[in-house]
Amino acid sequence: MTASDRERLARVALGTLGEPGDSRLVSLVAELGPVLVHDQLLAGYDTGDGVQDDIAARLVGADPARDLERAERAGIRFVVPGDDEWPTQVDQLLRTETLRDRGGPPLGLWVRGPMGLDELESSVAVVGSRSATSYGTTIAGEIAAVVARAGYPVVSGAAFGIDQAAHRGALAAGGRTVAVLACGVDLVYPPAHHQLLEHLAKTCAVVSELPPGRSVSRIRFLSRNRLIAALTRGTVVVEAAARSGALNTAGWAARLYRPLMSVPGPVTAAQSEGTHELLRTGAASIVTRGEEVLELVAPSGHHLVAPRRGRVYARDRLPPRQQQVLDAVPRHRGVGADAIARTAGIGLLDTQSALQRLEKMAIVARTSDGWRIRDVNAPDSPAENAEVPTMNP
Amino acid sequence: MTASDRERLARVALGTLGEPGDSRLVSLVAELGPVLVHDQLLAGYDTGDGVQDDIAARLVGADPARDLERAERAGIRFVVPGDDEWPTQVDQLLRTETLRDRGGPPLGLWVRGPMGLDELESSVAVVGSRSATSYGTTIAGEIAAVVARAGYPVVSGAAFGIDQAAHRGALAAGGRTVAVLACGVDLVYPPAHHQLLEHLAKTCAVVSELPPGRSVSRIRFLSRNRLIAALTRGTVVVEAAARSGALNTAGWAARLYRPLMSVPGPVTAAQSEGTHELLRTGAASIVTRGEEVLELVAPSGHHLVAPRRGRVYARDRLPPRQQQVLDAVPRHRGVGADAIARTAGIGLLDTQSALQRLEKMAIVARTSDGWRIRDVNAPDSPAENAEVPTMNP
Repeated sequence: MTASDRERLARVALGTLGEPGDSRLVSLVAELGPVLVHDQLLAGYDTGDGVQDDIAARLVGADPARDLERAERAGIRFVVPGDDEWPTQVDQLLRTETLRDRGGPPLGLWVRGPMGLDELESSVAVVGSRSATSYGTTIAGEIAAVVARAGYPVVSGAAFGIDQAAHRGALAAGGRTVAVLACGVDLVYPPAHHQLLEHLAKTCAVVSELPPGRSVSRIRFLSRNRLIAALTRGTVVVEAAARSGALNTAGWAARLYRPLMSVPGPVTAAQSEGTHELLRTGAASIVTRGEEVLELVAPSGHHLVAPRRGRVYARDRLPPRQQQVLDAVPRHRGVGADAIARTAGIGLLDTQSALQRLEKMAIVARTSDGWRIRDVNAPDSPAENAEVPTMNP
Repeated sequence: MTASDRERLARVALGTLGEPGDSRLVSLVAELGPVLVHDQLLAGYDTGDGVQDDIAARLVGADPARDLERAERAGIRFVVPGDDEWPTQVDQLLRTETLRDRGGPPLGLWVRGPMGLDELESSVAVVGSRSATSYGTTIAGEIAAVVARAGYPVVSGAAFGIDQAAHRGALAAGGRTVAVLACGVDLVYPPAHHQLLEHLAKTCAVVSELPPGRSVSRIRFLSRNRLIAALTRGTVVVEAAARSGALNTAGWAARLYRPLMSVPGPVTAAQSEGTHELLRTGAASIVTRGEEVLELVAPSGHHLVAPRRGRVYARDRLPPRQQQVLDAVPRHRGVGADAIARTAGIGLLDTQSALQRLEKMAIVARTSDGWRIRDVNAPDSPAENAEVPTMNP
């Protein structure tokens, strides 16, 4: 631990008296340091922006030393800037514009679990709708598994639906996953995820900006979303309805210039409207599997994904004019080279030379009737989807 | 008709002797005109690029005047550049690079049906997999219906799956739709679509670059795809597996700098792999409904689509600090303003003033116990997806 006890206590106090993501408080601390801000606010110094009044509402009974001691007894540590495990990537929030009056790095992070927060430097957020479809939870789990298996911790919010599927997918793959809560790390929200959160606290980490004991509220979800985006190297949105909180996390990832990724789904599903809107506005890159996520969050040149290709048939590799001749060779009877040339619209000499090459490749055969198809795997009739897709880059 | 009979006949002849999309033939015609090219080739003049030899393979029995007369008797017309209904947008193919040796505008277009080809100036191509899912055919039909209802003819290839659904969707909406074939317009491919093609020939148009009687082949599908892209103002790919012919059409749309649109689907479906790849490479814009297609193909500022928004609640329109106070007001009992101020972390005076405003809006009520929630529609517990999504542009 490198932060002084006074500074740590000042941060506990300010975090308890204020609300997470209060950008006024963050500005003061960045300018004057937590100890001075704390002392001045408690001395009743008027900051001129209302922080004084807000903090006064919670002064009665505040006791940061007691809070910190109690937390430590409960296995909860308070990580502050300067600590070895401080995730410095969140400091970028200081230079990021606010969103609905909220922003700035956390004053400190309450943590339950053995995993050091510095290990989140390479983490990936996987977030989405609470009312997810089974399609969404399946994909979230698969993506989280691939990402976690590659050594990138998966960060999410422990909510129903996509969040839960992301945590589970990472755990099932033997990877690490961290929950960031909108309440104290000693509380369980949603209550149904008691076992999941206990497991994460035992094996990985449960993190919150809020002091122990404090419950969820609307603005705490918004502040928490900013923290998920700021802790991670990139954010994947798996399903999000038009008003999903996941879009708020996405907005923070975009503000932080971190890769924002969106998984498409059926255009008929309300749960994919938000992800499609992220793609439509160009805010997010499309990802369809974990490997594509890795390609975007890994250092350039790592985890490159080959584009999906259909099966390539021998005939697809033929030069166009040989294909054209081959298309004119019948399957169920033999015909002369002149008839093939006429059908193909290719000169007789070229046709004969192409037929000889195709014969060497055992694709056509010369019979007593003339030329015919020999390769039994050759399609019987022209099939459009047997074409080689040639795309503009 | 403005093209001379000699020129028209020369184009019939060259189209019969050559293959559609033969870029060598197109270059010669663009340079020397169809009559001179025709006369020189028939006189055995060596073009140095093999066109002469290829054409010679089909010279026996060629009779363009007879072909044209027979076609006209069968209700088929041959439209050439200079005709009033010539779709001049296909001439852009002359200035477009080739794809697998093929390219260039058609020498002429064989048409069956009352609709003038000039009406395709505002048309939209809707194409995709033959082995489509029911999801894909549903969406293709819906998109085609919206596009056709707005007066934009829908162009497709009359194939199974997406093509068929697109034609049907346009017809069901009372709109116009045109099939572009990879065989003569007197033939039916696929044979199962006999009724569909007859209906289109009676009410709209069936179009082909190939002379009547000529059957499908692989390269004719490729040439046909280029024609679909070139005839239309933009191309929508609804479902496409990794090797779908629809990706070939997409490649042509991109080469022509026409809007290329791609419909997302479940990442678990092979039929959406191609559409997602188009989105991933940035070749296509994402579209999720017909209105979004119209926005991209209509003149700028027409058919603008409002982004999808969830329901907005009264509380969402409150300033953040009033929301913060409201979040701290209990639902099932009344509490004093000081307790609310402490929970919200907002100064007592501000809290009181916020409570008074919320009271005026009938969102909270002052009871004998203190303040409590009044609006029965207010959610009981903080729900993340009740947030207003605020996104980076």
